[in-house]
Amino acid sequence: MIHEPTHKDILQSASRIFNHIHKTPILTSRLINKICGANLFFKCENLQKVGAFKFRGASNAVLTLDKNYRANGVATHSSGNHAAALALSAKNNGIKSFIVMPSNAPIQKKNAVQEYGAKIIYCKPTLEARESTLEKVVEETGAVFIHPYNNHIVIAGQATCAMEIFNDISNLDYLIAPVGGGGLLSGTCLSAKYISPSTKVIGAEPEGADDAYRSIRDGKIYPSVEPKTICDGLRTSLGVKTFSILNKYVYEIITVPDKATINAMRLIWERMKIIVEPSSAIVLAAVIQNKSKFANKKVGLILSGGNVDLNNLPF
Amino acid sequence: MIHEPTHKDILQSASRIFNHIHKTPILTSRLINKICGANLFFKCENLQKVGAFKFRGASNAVLTLDKNYRANGVATHSSGNHAAALALSAKNNGIKSFIVMPSNAPIQKKNAVQEYGAKIIYCKPTLEARESTLEKVVEETGAVFIHPYNNHIVIAGQATCAMEIFNDISNLDYLIAPVGGGGLLSGTCLSAKYISPSTKVIGAEPEGADDAYRSIRDGKIYPSVEPKTICDGLRTSLGVKTFSILNKYVYEIITVPDKATINAMRLIWERMKIIVEPSSAIVLAAVIQNKSKFANKKVGLILSGGNVDLNNLPF
Repeated sequence: MIHEPTHKDILQSASRIFNHIHKTPILTSRLINKICGANLFFKCENLQKVGAFKFRGASNAVLTLDKNYRANGVATHSSGNHAAALALSAKNNGIKSFIVMPSNAPIQKKNAVQEYGAKIIYCKPTLEARESTLEKVVEETGAVFIHPYNNHIVIAGQATCAMEIFNDISNLDYLIAPVGGGGLLSGTCLSAKYISPSTKVIGAEPEGADDAYRSIRDGKIYPSVEPKTICDGLRTSLGVKTFSILNKYVYEIITVPDKATINAMRLIWERMKIIVEPSSAIVLAAVIQNKSKFANKKVGLILSGGNVDLNNLPF
Repeated sequence: MIHEPTHKDILQSASRIFNHIHKTPILTSRLINKICGANLFFKCENLQKVGAFKFRGASNAVLTLDKNYRANGVATHSSGNHAAALALSAKNNGIKSFIVMPSNAPIQKKNAVQEYGAKIIYCKPTLEARESTLEKVVEETGAVFIHPYNNHIVIAGQATCAMEIFNDISNLDYLIAPVGGGGLLSGTCLSAKYISPSTKVIGAEPEGADDAYRSIRDGKIYPSVEPKTICDGLRTSLGVKTFSILNKYVYEIITVPDKATINAMRLIWERMKIIVEPSSAIVLAAVIQNKSKFANKKVGLILSGGNVDLNNLPF
């Protein structure tokens, strides 16, 4: 898809992936509303397949794969949720997948990807090694590279999450999503634009990895250089396609210190009884850090994923 | 209510508490289905208000309180989820609550009950002290004692959980609930009897607190003496009312070693991204310990609660 996803593209994506994904619940917490002085609606993509919204975009990409390329399979480089999402989606559709992972990726992520039947190709833990290894894999196998976020089909898939929110909850004043590479946030912006234009879409980003904040402020893409944050899903840079969408439609990027994110993460675990990763909890931290802005507002929050190492919790 | 709850009683309870409780989601996990070789449906009462199904029964009791007693309030003795449930439900309805708690109750449970506006009366950590202190409180205040499980209104409230399951998932072969005092399990039996009589209702009980297993086997109530289990919600004895219902309608009680429960708890946390307490995880452990019985069956599992001390996890 060479054009920015249209309303029709997102609707088609939603019906395409409908039978393959979970329609995740939207939860509320009286106590957290009281703490924040706002009316919050938590969209639980941590309860999505593979434990992250990434399964939406990956499924959309796999299901629209050109027939001539199906036999060759799909490929990506990722040590995180996109790797697992692409591997599972490919497996479910009888398609091969090749995942380039850094050799130092956490063992449980390697295991998950392997379990989903992907062929893992290890490389040195640098961006250069990942990209050059991927290039070689694509050349040798003819597999189609599915970029984790800088891909309109993937963005249209992620947009279905906000679409589900707008279908269930009307008149949201704000909708907050985390921003790393910007796939989820740009999909969220597009769905808001088409379905609920009065809802302001906000990105939440770690202070120690504030490249999206600076990119939107200055109107040009800054790469994410030496990001320092516990939010392992939010260390990447914006892509040309996600930047282009965010630059037009995002209302604001709020940066959040990791300490507030860790506190919010614990609050969600203790009070909502769901497991979220730091990259998810940041959206609640953004509200708690900016209470006056959200006072008495109706706010949607996308909890993007729940993949954490239970033996290595930050609290 | 002096009679065993009828179908009409449960339907009325459901509509009475409808606006006060969460309709909790039913989740599935492809991977856990694969591990078990069965088709499992998890009813997430850990996502219920106060983090436990107890809020259903407590709400039902508070909402049916005789008008003449409303001013006096409600009372109970409990260090656990029923205390919090009764306190919150009373508060939400402008009714006073008096909770007798053992002095050694965990600080976070004391805090939760206090936060919900209850008056806490501390006593020595023995059953005698709890009962005599409660008696004194009831005498002094005129508050109505709401028993945590040996109470037909409470049982009818807990029955609404299984009713929601049957409304959403048809033709379950089995429905498994944990059994402590038997309030949830007897409510589950009643709903199955009225709505889905072909579904076999099974109780899951810790090996180290198997009084319900022995009581049903021998047809008489054995008290729970020195229970040894990590499942802190399942250490109590059956009551006359819950025993009477279970004795007639429960299909089977399965006992489970704590080690299997802890493994199941971790599996649910890691794979389903939700927080369950050991007393909940036991239902999955019961399936994993008895795979041949449940092979290829459609099985409902009630995850009863999610209140755990994050600083004191068993894994």
